[in-house]
Amino acid sequence: MKKYTSLNDINNLQETINKAILLKKDPFKFSSIGKNKTLVMLFFNASLRTRLSTEKAAKNLGMHVSVLNISNAWSLEFEDGTVMNLTSSEHIKEAAKVISQYAEIIAIRAFPSLKNKEKDASEFVINNFIKYAEVPIVNMESATDHPLQALADAITITEFKTVKKPKVVLSWAPHPKALPHSVANAFVHLMHKMEVDFTITHPKGYELDTSITKDTLIEHDQHKAFENADFIYTKNWSSYLDYGKTTNKFSNWMITKKNLGNAKFMHCLPIRRNVVAEDEVLDSDNSLVIKQANNRTYATQIVLKQILENL
Amino acid sequence: MKKYTSLNDINNLQETINKAILLKKDPFKFSSIGKNKTLVMLFFNASLRTRLSTEKAAKNLGMHVSVLNISNAWSLEFEDGTVMNLTSSEHIKEAAKVISQYAEIIAIRAFPSLKNKEKDASEFVINNFIKYAEVPIVNMESATDHPLQALADAITITEFKTVKKPKVVLSWAPHPKALPHSVANAFVHLMHKMEVDFTITHPKGYELDTSITKDTLIEHDQHKAFENADFIYTKNWSSYLDYGKTTNKFSNWMITKKNLGNAKFMHCLPIRRNVVAEDEVLDSDNSLVIKQANNRTYATQIVLKQILENL
Amino acid sequence: MKKYTSLNDINNLQETINKAILLKKDPFKFSSIGKNKTLVMLFFNASLRTRLSTEKAAKNLGMHVSVLNISNAWSLEFEDGTVMNLTSSEHIKEAAKVISQYAEIIAIRAFPSLKNKEKDASEFVINNFIKYAEVPIVNMESATDHPLQALADAITITEFKTVKKPKVVLSWAPHPKALPHSVANAFVHLMHKMEVDFTITHPKGYELDTSITKDTLIEHDQHKAFENADFIYTKNWSSYLDYGKTTNKFSNWMITKKNLGNAKFMHCLPIRRNVVAEDEVLDSDNSLVIKQANNRTYATQIVLKQILENL
Repeated sequence: MKKYTSLNDINNLQETINKAILLKKDPFKFSSIGKNKTLVMLFFNASLRTRLSTEKAAKNLGMHVSVLNISNAWSLEFEDGTVMNLTSSEHIKEAAKVISQYAEIIAIRAFPSLKNKEKDASEFVINNFIKYAEVPIVNMESATDHPLQALADAITITEFKTVKKPKVVLSWAPHPKALPHSVANAFVHLMHKMEVDFTITHPKGYELDTSITKDTLIEHDQHKAFENADFIYTKNWSSYLDYGKTTNKFSNWMITKKNLGNAKFMHCLPIRRNVVAEDEVLDSDNSLVIKQANNRTYATQIVLKQILENL
Repeated sequence: MKKYTSLNDINNLQETINKAILLKKDPFKFSSIGKNKTLVMLFFNASLRTRLSTEKAAKNLGMHVSVLNISNAWSLEFEDGTVMNLTSSEHIKEAAKVISQYAEIIAIRAFPSLKNKEKDASEFVINNFIKYAEVPIVNMESATDHPLQALADAITITEFKTVKKPKVVLSWAPHPKALPHSVANAFVHLMHKMEVDFTITHPKGYELDTSITKDTLIEHDQHKAFENADFIYTKNWSSYLDYGKTTNKFSNWMITKKNLGNAKFMHCLPIRRNVVAEDEVLDSDNSLVIKQANNRTYATQIVLKQILENL
Repeated sequence: MKKYTSLNDINNLQETINKAILLKKDPFKFSSIGKNKTLVMLFFNASLRTRLSTEKAAKNLGMHVSVLNISNAWSLEFEDGTVMNLTSSEHIKEAAKVISQYAEIIAIRAFPSLKNKEKDASEFVINNFIKYAEVPIVNMESATDHPLQALADAITITEFKTVKKPKVVLSWAPHPKALPHSVANAFVHLMHKMEVDFTITHPKGYELDTSITKDTLIEHDQHKAFENADFIYTKNWSSYLDYGKTTNKFSNWMITKKNLGNAKFMHCLPIRRNVVAEDEVLDSDNSLVIKQANNRTYATQIVLKQILENL
């Protein structure tokens, strides 16, 4: 693996899932593969799960880890040819090359603005790091994608499915704030690569990017979508059409014990209790959210391992 | 040891002190006991000594350490059953369980509000972590207690006492800001467990929680309290009765070379010079404050070691 | 080496440069020399290169590293005898001694105010750490000096010079903000210790501290200064005479492909593109800025190694 910025960077998804599950049983088996190698984690946004699981995954492989909350340091310039006499004190061209001097792998978290659709869609942060860095880049959630979360979800579904081709539903849920589309996009990408019967359900107006969802069944009746579901993956996202807006709250779209039925409940966390899903869902045995969080470590670890093997 | 959130978690205090003193002579003796184990340190408040000594103690035992200043990330919800549509983005139920996926031990610093006495007394942060985390919790100073400081103080008193049962005085001292009761509480707990002649002295109005001090001699005349003292442990705290208030400054309660006499001077640091104690006290050989700070490492190391042995 | 707070702490510069170049070829040769030793890095100001390269250098030597952004924690008092009843919550006397309990080496970054010339010149932060700490101090850029950058520059010039005694020019360049003199000062110090033909060029009004530049040729005509230069080291600094002011912007002093000619271009980074130097300079093969950044690791590593050998 030369980088991991989208699920497409994985050659053989099923094999990678299987290897991650093996790694989970013996996480320190490859504890010298990362010896004397450094992972630099750059955060443009706050992180709990990604921070801790990525750090753990790298250290399980024997890597050194440096964590930099770059927004505390200074703002980077991403435009070509700018006269940099305003607030940005360093250009991505230098920053990416410089960090490459100190790291064998650079992992980056950079959320979207949710204000400028074209700019967010351009993935200018992660793509400029790919362009100018001299070492592999790992996406720790970018403007439009979250492939480490998707891989953790793939592991979790593989571990908990009881039929060969489970029915999986991605359901929009309410939220007080405007949230990115990255987790939903990554999950849709994933579903296209797994042997599943996949449906998306959301209120009208909350359509995702149709270039991503074009081959997917979309059912606007949440109740109907949930019928016979094995897994219900829940996530809020703001409007994509009326970009970044959250005009309609649709609070009746909250996941309840009743509408969940016997399905397994999945969410990437953090989750707003009694807004996205009610307490009874999260406190039930049907909830897989903590298992998903745990699998973040092994998803990242298999990715870092495959990159280290290719250095 | 299953957790360390109060001195009561220590089975045999004297034995633990002795083991810590041995560890101090050979700090790397158990450098493989923490191999492939992770300590996650969560800070809801700033830290210098606790941060550095805890990190060092864990690494002396071979552990990996992740430090998270969680207030920079997001605010947690601690109430049961809340509809989380306001500022809190994650519930302690998920946060504690999730962090448990990445850590063998979780250490937490969470200061009191000094505004809501009942809420502070409930120790809702540390107690909810104890309730919901799946791994042992270590208290790096909570709303009402600071047991790692107390254990470091126990080591220091043991090292410097010259009589079997020394006279120890805990003295209130002036301070420009309203401070918590945690260090004072922890020290009173400690004194009840050591072979000492113990007195508390403070101006009227600065009574500590009487459920903690009920078996302790309280002398409001500082001069009289200090007579023949071997150790004078100094600390400011705000009013407990008129909760969190600092109406009366009592600047004449500052520790001076003259009122210290031959007693050893102790303080947990940071200390305001010429407010809490004058320069001559801190610059004299009678001051043990740097020794106390040094013992923070070995207090924490013996605690982590005993927890690791019980995993 | 007992400390590294200025280039004068290096006994034999040429030998140190040669050793650093050897280390660069085999960075893990001394990976056990720092075993069970801790480097505490204290940042009073933001850092990217220094943070990552110093952490890497220390870990290459097997050290543990703790990073503390101390301005987030609390403000330190540096004056002797102060009654600390205002904002500072800890005196340098305690802070330096306490951190010494947890570290074998303390590295410090503390920029100048650029408001109080005498106070900045006194280097009160780094000098008080030298005075009160019980372990060696490393300067990660202080009010008036940046000796780790200078040593990295020494390595870079040694690697890229093609004549025995190259012509090196230090050129002032424009910048929208008021910047310190530390990098320029450190480079002048360095030039006095290397076998070079050295010239400083800057607009009138931007004279550096004459006690540092007194033996140096100063040429106010940038074009003339650049004639036959082998290396052009560029840096903005604010006025020293009219301390910290940047009244005159002299935008025509930007380094261009044309005025650079065949010289190698050097800068400590971060750099404002098309303000300090134009894109064509930074994107050309003549630019050594990334090599300089890379050499920061080996400069720091040889310094830490020599300090560790002297503990």
